[in-house]
Amino acid sequence: MRAEIITIGTEILLGQTVDSNSAWMGQRLSEVGVEVQRITSISDQPSAIVAALDAVHPSTQWVLITGGLGPTKDDLTKHVLTDYFGDSLVYRPEIYDHIEALFAKMGRVPNALNRPQADFPRKAELLHNAMGTAQGMLWKEHGRRYVSMPGVPYEMKHILETGVLPKMRAEQADVHLHRYFVVQGVPESDLALRIESWESALPAGLSLAYLPSPGVVKLRLSARVAAVDQSVMEANMEREATTLKALLGADCYAEDLVPLEVVVGEKLKQAGQTVATAESCTGGSIVARLTSIPGSSAYVVGGVVAYSNSVKEHQLGVRKADLMVHGAVSEPVVRQMAEGVRKRLKSDWALATSGVAGPDGGSEAKPVGTVWIALAGPNGTWSKKFSMGLNRGRTVEKSVLAALDALRRALDNA
Amino acid sequence: MRAEIITIGTEILLGQTVDSNSAWMGQRLSEVGVEVQRITSISDQPSAIVAALDAVHPSTQWVLITGGLGPTKDDLTKHVLTDYFGDSLVYRPEIYDHIEALFAKMGRVPNALNRPQADFPRKAELLHNAMGTAQGMLWKEHGRRYVSMPGVPYEMKHILETGVLPKMRAEQADVHLHRYFVVQGVPESDLALRIESWESALPAGLSLAYLPSPGVVKLRLSARVAAVDQSVMEANMEREATTLKALLGADCYAEDLVPLEVVVGEKLKQAGQTVATAESCTGGSIVARLTSIPGSSAYVVGGVVAYSNSVKEHQLGVRKADLMVHGAVSEPVVRQMAEGVRKRLKSDWALATSGVAGPDGGSEAKPVGTVWIALAGPNGTWSKKFSMGLNRGRTVEKSVLAALDALRRALDNA
Repeated sequence: MRAEIITIGTEILLGQTVDSNSAWMGQRLSEVGVEVQRITSISDQPSAIVAALDAVHPSTQWVLITGGLGPTKDDLTKHVLTDYFGDSLVYRPEIYDHIEALFAKMGRVPNALNRPQADFPRKAELLHNAMGTAQGMLWKEHGRRYVSMPGVPYEMKHILETGVLPKMRAEQADVHLHRYFVVQGVPESDLALRIESWESALPAGLSLAYLPSPGVVKLRLSARVAAVDQSVMEANMEREATTLKALLGADCYAEDLVPLEVVVGEKLKQAGQTVATAESCTGGSIVARLTSIPGSSAYVVGGVVAYSNSVKEHQLGVRKADLMVHGAVSEPVVRQMAEGVRKRLKSDWALATSGVAGPDGGSEAKPVGTVWIALAGPNGTWSKKFSMGLNRGRTVEKSVLAALDALRRALDNA
Repeated sequence: MRAEIITIGTEILLGQTVDSNSAWMGQRLSEVGVEVQRITSISDQPSAIVAALDAVHPSTQWVLITGGLGPTKDDLTKHVLTDYFGDSLVYRPEIYDHIEALFAKMGRVPNALNRPQADFPRKAELLHNAMGTAQGMLWKEHGRRYVSMPGVPYEMKHILETGVLPKMRAEQADVHLHRYFVVQGVPESDLALRIESWESALPAGLSLAYLPSPGVVKLRLSARVAAVDQSVMEANMEREATTLKALLGADCYAEDLVPLEVVVGEKLKQAGQTVATAESCTGGSIVARLTSIPGSSAYVVGGVVAYSNSVKEHQLGVRKADLMVHGAVSEPVVRQMAEGVRKRLKSDWALATSGVAGPDGGSEAKPVGTVWIALAGPNGTWSKKFSMGLNRGRTVEKSVLAALDALRRALDNA
């Protein structure tokens, strides 16, 4: 099945909003085997909306439209679509009740602008929006489905998940199966080499996709199979997944698209243990990442950001002699940072970083991108030197992931 | 003038890449008065590229195409465009010299895949790409310009800035003038009210736009004027900008689209002063933001992330009695955190946060979103309570900005 996405909103054309909705829809649709063949962003002018509808490709079976469903006068999508399909609006009291109930939760009452949001096209199917006032609409016209959803990301996602994807799945003659494997700390090319002979021997119907993102490689094993053959394919998939898992070993940190800080947090909670950080080049990004997760106060004690040598010495107990002889970016210093914060903040585990994030501060012996990472724990201290490249932001990002991954591996082995 | 953007790349349709290039182009084009009327994202199939070119709106004068110019076999844009315009490729040795020089900088030599990147369409104008191997192409056909650029953001931006925007400006009968004013700490609706009577009395030809982003409101004062009247309009603009600045007062932190942490960093450097942080609910995000700026080691000493009460007490010197009587989220505690880190890390300034980021941990007296912020400095300690709302991520983001802004205002008054 083929789909097109049309996003309506002058703010996208002016660059005030980045169209992240379309990327999210593209991912979800590809998972159910629907191919997005075009994304079109247009202004909220009726003529632009009509032109985009006229331009839909003959082979398109689903047209997903977002935006222009708010209560203000420049939100014209519902009216334009209703006219386009020769439809008319009728007041639906149950929609108004829903709007009233939503407002009541915020201690407010709907105003005159909200009442027309309860007008709904006669011929369209209502896709309930529990998250907001603008309801989703689905027309069957010209041999395809047209779906109109609000542009607010969590409202669009809710309608797509509950009202659209189930229909797409039900209409697919084929079943689409997916398994994810998230790998940290292995460059994509090394990973490809490691699984090359397994990948080239995959049975028919199974395929592997690499989804790269900074510092992490996500592998997606997919199968497309007629419903009658589903159980056979599921067995195939399970067997291949088992082989792939063995090849990935401890480098695979999750079989779901979950951030590393969530995995680490879960493992710490299960172990009833805590972590602290002593950060130099990462400047607080490790502890900020850990504490971005709700409930992280159960296992994050805190951290020290030691940007200056004085803080390394006085707040973490790094020996002044080592700072002078070896420099701040060195194995003895990063180990003492980890051990120092673990002792002073009384945590079970402690992560430390010291590196040259750049663009300045590099030398021949310690070029920009050199990062030492240490992990102090109940059974001693681990440390390793990394070369993270020339980009300051990426060096911080990759160092955060490498540090969290060291803790993840240690927790698995503890 | 009207433009369309066509982005080529299956990774955009699959949602593996968010199309941030188009947003950036939309912003820059709107600044020179070019209206983007459509953005189309398509796969790298030749038929899809041809269909998109055929569908360009008759009123479009500029077609900006990105993507599909790499050295691998699925990069077909150059060939498809060359065919489309009845053009042919010719080897341009100066392009190959440029590619060789780029590779030499990385200690590499071009391979067989790179050589065809020096083939260039005869009829096209070369838009030099100093940042990469794929050169920009500009055709004049069908009464409009077609520009093809790589999809790599910094390469696309370089070509647009140096090769495209100057041409657009030169062709505009009208001159477009813009002034930016970035405001922190004032809700958009309050701001609109404050400048309402000024805005409604703006002289003809001047207009104001609100560019909202979380926690910050950017105002853009724009004028469009015939070149002969430029000096008159510049005088008008200067006068209105002066009035607007007076209305915004200290709430305006920059007259350029610059992040707050850069402004704060510059002020600290000028003052020859340093800052430290003591963070609870922001979990290290303030110090991570400050240290994201190259050269920040000159003014960031470091920080303590005190997620647990024990760390607040032992690393920052918060009195245990105050923690017990007032709780961690309280004015006495946040003030002691700021003063404690300032004293222990020996900085001139110190920022502290303590709040309920949620989703759990709220109470009637201290609901989710309650955040105390303190700033300790040479002349004493300032503190304030904020209500940041129910979303954990936004509460952290808004708290970081509110804290940095408190320091910015103090540095202005010091």
